[in-house]
Amino acid sequence: MKTIEDMARDARLAYKAFLNKGTTMLKNDILEAIAENILKERDRIVDANGKDLENGRKKGLSKAFLDRLELNNNRIDGMYRACMEIMALKDPVGSVNDMTVRPGGFRVGKMRVPIGVIGMIYEARPNVTVEAAVLCLKAGNGVILRGGSDALNSNMALAGLIRDTLKEKEVDENLISFIETTDRTAIVDLIQQNKFVDLIIPRGGESLIRTVTEKSKIPVLKHYKGVCHTYVNEFADLDMALKVTVNAKVQRPAVCNTTETLLVDEAVAPTFLPAVIKALLKNGVEIRGCPKTMAYSDDIKEATEDDWYAEYLDLTLAVKVVKDIDEAIAHIDKYGSAHTDAIITRDIAVSEMFIRNVDSSSVIVNATTRLADGGVYGLGTEIGIATDRLHARGPMGLEELTTYKWVVYGNGNIRQ
Amino acid sequence: MKTIEDMARDARLAYKAFLNKGTTMLKNDILEAIAENILKERDRIVDANGKDLENGRKKGLSKAFLDRLELNNNRIDGMYRACMEIMALKDPVGSVNDMTVRPGGFRVGKMRVPIGVIGMIYEARPNVTVEAAVLCLKAGNGVILRGGSDALNSNMALAGLIRDTLKEKEVDENLISFIETTDRTAIVDLIQQNKFVDLIIPRGGESLIRTVTEKSKIPVLKHYKGVCHTYVNEFADLDMALKVTVNAKVQRPAVCNTTETLLVDEAVAPTFLPAVIKALLKNGVEIRGCPKTMAYSDDIKEATEDDWYAEYLDLTLAVKVVKDIDEAIAHIDKYGSAHTDAIITRDIAVSEMFIRNVDSSSVIVNATTRLADGGVYGLGTEIGIATDRLHARGPMGLEELTTYKWVVYGNGNIRQ
Repeated sequence: MKTIEDMARDARLAYKAFLNKGTTMLKNDILEAIAENILKERDRIVDANGKDLENGRKKGLSKAFLDRLELNNNRIDGMYRACMEIMALKDPVGSVNDMTVRPGGFRVGKMRVPIGVIGMIYEARPNVTVEAAVLCLKAGNGVILRGGSDALNSNMALAGLIRDTLKEKEVDENLISFIETTDRTAIVDLIQQNKFVDLIIPRGGESLIRTVTEKSKIPVLKHYKGVCHTYVNEFADLDMALKVTVNAKVQRPAVCNTTETLLVDEAVAPTFLPAVIKALLKNGVEIRGCPKTMAYSDDIKEATEDDWYAEYLDLTLAVKVVKDIDEAIAHIDKYGSAHTDAIITRDIAVSEMFIRNVDSSSVIVNATTRLADGGVYGLGTEIGIATDRLHARGPMGLEELTTYKWVVYGNGNIRQ
Repeated sequence: MKTIEDMARDARLAYKAFLNKGTTMLKNDILEAIAENILKERDRIVDANGKDLENGRKKGLSKAFLDRLELNNNRIDGMYRACMEIMALKDPVGSVNDMTVRPGGFRVGKMRVPIGVIGMIYEARPNVTVEAAVLCLKAGNGVILRGGSDALNSNMALAGLIRDTLKEKEVDENLISFIETTDRTAIVDLIQQNKFVDLIIPRGGESLIRTVTEKSKIPVLKHYKGVCHTYVNEFADLDMALKVTVNAKVQRPAVCNTTETLLVDEAVAPTFLPAVIKALLKNGVEIRGCPKTMAYSDDIKEATEDDWYAEYLDLTLAVKVVKDIDEAIAHIDKYGSAHTDAIITRDIAVSEMFIRNVDSSSVIVNATTRLADGGVYGLGTEIGIATDRLHARGPMGLEELTTYKWVVYGNGNIRQ
């Protein structure tokens, strides 16, 4: 079997060749062919996935885990659609922004270009194999995929199909590589390949991400936690606040952009809290509140310091009454994870103050934190959400998988 | 004395407070006051600089080094002008790009925001203290400055003046801090403060940059080498090629965007090489050539493999005859440093191919590589040049000292 270093070197060569060859037309042609091959190879994909499911059941994996692992007809159609949607997205590569004419008479601008070779480390869901591969391809990047061990057969079938399609289209198939071993040393090897790999994107549990970040010689684009807040300001439309708060907690509690802490201005607490507590309890939400919140219901446990830091990813919500927007901002600054935070208010000065001071990757006014999503923002499929500050923040789509270079069009200009 | 950790924590607090307070008007007001104080305190700055110069002479520092260290009246005026120029630049913070209305009826866009707290490590030239501080300030960042030990007195005078001006304007002066010790452990401490510091920018020799990059827990924006190429294509205007090549090598050979290797298509070598060799020799350039180049003059040393990798930063030039553009691109890919590379050609298809395939931070058509500069590109003062791929490439100005956050303006939107 190839070493990881050989794989990385080959990916870089394939990426370099594709810089020249990878026109938008060819890229879209490949994406369409991958989509069609997914439908054609449906049975083979389901078979491979069947092996993973069987191994998983033997291993005693949880029902929820097995559900995420499964590639049924619906999900195969979903992968087809993802390819076709990404095909339809505007190609960012080669577009030039901020072109200006300088006094010397030459033009200078910033051209969007691929980032290079990306190492993608992810767990569980095998559809990520397809989504990551086609997003990277459309942005002109090479990619080395390392999927979770429980999805190995499914991932190998999908990656094999994608590589076969590249060959069909006479593109070096090493543009998209898949690490076929489940040996953890492969990850350690991959994150040392700074000569050939430009960016590592880990998607998975916090411990995976911390390990990768600590040991990587390559920049890591990461997502730690989503401790998202909804802050109901004293000038809020309280009907809106009720509807949005319940949605932010209840609609899909297991995902990173769900609200984990509700902050309520004390001026509206007496009217808002009884209503929202009732609605949340009706939806099966466990509430952990500050002493002031507890006064409104006997069904509220007292929140500990840990609760303010908690990413429950479950039907649990921490609730705190705050004096004013300053206390709300200070709370978010101290306990939040800079992922997504929302304010409900009618007052423009207040919302602008919230936007200016809350230093998170998404700041939302008068809507649910659940909106923080590549699809909802209009990016098409996202490759992940970043809680870092550089180079991308929040949902990352095609544009975020590119960087830029300066291009100068001169006419013999020299420097005096 | 404060520990580096305390300094970093205080810088972060000052940065957070400035998020709210730092309007464009206040920032410009501070910049103007700094500029004026530089003129007012001219004598004190010259005195402090005099101590550094005296220490330097005792230490036996080179004349070139002492020249870079000196703050004479001209250079003090230059620092004044730098402040006024940065004051005049458009404030990127708070501007929103790519705002769209989504089907749900809410608006989403990307707002430019400061990066956070920046650790700036630099050597020698004390004017960098002022330039880095005011650029970071205008972009709304906090900054911790660590200058070279030989400029300690000058830097302390300048940083003190800036901090006094912040106090005058009732802004927390820890927004701009200066590390007053020349102890190297301070650098090691600084690059571990990932809780408080968001980006490290080292400017200096390659060994400093390698050390910082290896040990830093914080993303590092770095500049390794400038092995820049000028490629004279067979379809070049040879008069232009001659003028541009000589300028790229001779005009200021000690800087990173000077051309270190000249590549010449074999089709034009017999007409172009004799002329360019003559002009270069006349300008005192030492030429190291491939065997084909050597045929044109007896005054050319044979280039070794090391010469193709060399960043001479001197009046030395490596010259190679290549078969065609493919060989030129392959040479740049192998030996270049992804800094700045230029092509001279009249042919559009050829220049577009060069732009597409040369994966450098600046790609220049029909002009000198010396153009790759923040001032020339229209950025105003630059904080540095990056040879990394993320998050900024090439000259970095005000815009490159910011990142973005997503802002969503809703009207009660929820996720179904």
